Amino acid sequence: MNHSPSSDGAITRCRSLFEPALREAVSALHPWGAQMAAFALGWSDADGRPDDRDGGKGVRPAVAMLAAEAVGGGAESGLPAAVAVELVHAFSLAHDDIIDHDERRRHRAALWKAYGVGPALLAGDALLALAVHELAGRPEAMRYLSAALVELVQGQTADMAFENRPWHGPRAVTISEYVEMAAGKTGGLLGAAAATGVALGGAPALADRMWEMGRDLGVAFQIVDDMLGIWGEPDVTGKPVHNDLRRDKKTFPVLAALAADHPEARELAALLAAGLPDDDAVHQAARLVTEVGGRASAEAMAERYISSALRIMDECLPEAVELRAVCESLVHRVR
Amino acid sequence: MNHSPSSDGAITRCRSLFEPALREAVSALHPWGAQMAAFALGWSDADGRPDDRDGGKGVRPAVAMLAAEAVGGGAESGLPAAVAVELVHAFSLAHDDIIDHDERRRHRAALWKAYGVGPALLAGDALLALAVHELAGRPEAMRYLSAALVELVQGQTADMAFENRPWHGPRAVTISEYVEMAAGKTGGLLGAAAATGVALGGAPALADRMWEMGRDLGVAFQIVDDMLGIWGEPDVTGKPVHNDLRRDKKTFPVLAALAADHPEARELAALLAAGLPDDDAVHQAARLVTEVGGRASAEAMAERYISSALRIMDECLPEAVELRAVCESLVHRVR
Repeated sequence: MNHSPSSDGAITRCRSLFEPALREAVSALHPWGAQMAAFALGWSDADGRPDDRDGGKGVRPAVAMLAAEAVGGGAESGLPAAVAVELVHAFSLAHDDIIDHDERRRHRAALWKAYGVGPALLAGDALLALAVHELAGRPEAMRYLSAALVELVQGQTADMAFENRPWHGPRAVTISEYVEMAAGKTGGLLGAAAATGVALGGAPALADRMWEMGRDLGVAFQIVDDMLGIWGEPDVTGKPVHNDLRRDKKTFPVLAALAADHPEARELAALLAAGLPDDDAVHQAARLVTEVGGRASAEAMAERYISSALRIMDECLPEAVELRAVCESLVHRVR
Repeated sequence: MNHSPSSDGAITRCRSLFEPALREAVSALHPWGAQMAAFALGWSDADGRPDDRDGGKGVRPAVAMLAAEAVGGGAESGLPAAVAVELVHAFSLAHDDIIDHDERRRHRAALWKAYGVGPALLAGDALLALAVHELAGRPEAMRYLSAALVELVQGQTADMAFENRPWHGPRAVTISEYVEMAAGKTGGLLGAAAATGVALGGAPALADRMWEMGRDLGVAFQIVDDMLGIWGEPDVTGKPVHNDLRRDKKTFPVLAALAADHPEARELAALLAAGLPDDDAVHQAARLVTEVGGRASAEAMAERYISSALRIMDECLPEAVELRAVCESLVHRVR
């Protein structure tokens, strides 16, 4: 991710407040659970030795804290929200990697590869339990966290169900189904970060709008992620090239390409229907998606959702320069 | 489980109120998630055909509703708590069977055997998300549900960690570690059922005591479950005979037997240390546990925790005849 200087500075500032609080929350776990959590959060290697090179950036907690700050509550008032959303994020990565059989995460072993499926599943549950516990006494925030949890599993279930749907014909996945899936799978937690942040910061009346803002941002983020899954550098993404194509993932660029009225769209459909038998077919499919305009459509659609998110932000929190910069940085990769 | 007429009637009465509410909660899921949830809850077979022979009894929801009723709120006031605890119970069974590689549950396939590990994991997450959503706006109840979630994963983690601990020597599992594990793994959710019930029924001041009551009951319930795992009839328990012994599970009767000052306790220790190489060794170990007094110790310990739970109940809710009967029925199997 390319962060602007403003967003990088804000994320670093939030991180210095937020990481001690997260470490304290995790320290309540059983020692074995705490060790797996530390690995999942990128604080240590699989043997428990400190190694903090591969953690997440902490964008979601920064959104929560900057949102709290933007409504006058001070970044600290958003800390419980920051801790909760980062724990939910770590929970979802731990379980997603099991579900998707992904062996690598952030350039090292996935949690389940390092500790086994059962322990990793349980460590994910522990992260989720801590997240819920963090906000249990704050219904004004809990409401959005729990909505995000439901959306997350719904979106993930839809995404999994899409893999068994055909590329063409009446049962094919539509663009609007895709958007709903992405808003849930990726947008819910971003929405919860912003909504719980303003709620704890003292402006619960803004929370519904922040929830919408985050969902729009999530759709844009997911489309960008899909683009990286097709055209990203494996060295940067940490995933094999054309990974999503090989898995029949119903990504936005491919869905948009297939919807084009173009002879090569039919060629692409035939290739996909044949199951992309070899590497040549995979590369040709990626080329066709670009030629038929799937990449351009994806860029335009991502742009549309980013603009919608920023419009809500400008309307509700016109002074929130850092929050705006961090949200923009999330999808900066295609701008 | 042998229920008294009084507890059976109360459970049936609660069930008629509670099941429609639970079905409505589950209907919010993605159709695929809802199908897996219906299977997990014992409402349908793996193909989605209605088949309600193998559901749970609904003891936890009955505890929540009867607790609400006992403090004057009416059974309906406890409905959100009843729905939430049953969802958490179903979540924990779905994940436990993955973790423990248990292929059977309630005399049919475990959820993961029927749908695969990834989908079953996700369905479990969905059940948990719904549970949290159910109580998100009620902090007086949410506090206990979230505490139960943390206890549940802590207890489950401890139980899993016990499997890698030796039977003998300084690193052996102690009785007090066992009790802490059982109070978390099994007691937390029973405590949450009773505590959320009284909280929603209008007596939040009683919730802490009900939480303790449920935890004591959980320890007794777990010890009884351990006894059934060694001496229970496979036809009744639905599990292979001596299942826990074969898996090096640190169950109460075995821990108690090993703690006895008896020559046969040393024989048992040697057998267990050798890893119970064959069926003969397994049967001999079970026989030694009985002879050394492990069964009698387990009965006494379960009795002690049941009495403690009932003492709290009699003190706080002396008129709650049905609630008392349902709690007793949970552990009736050894009385």
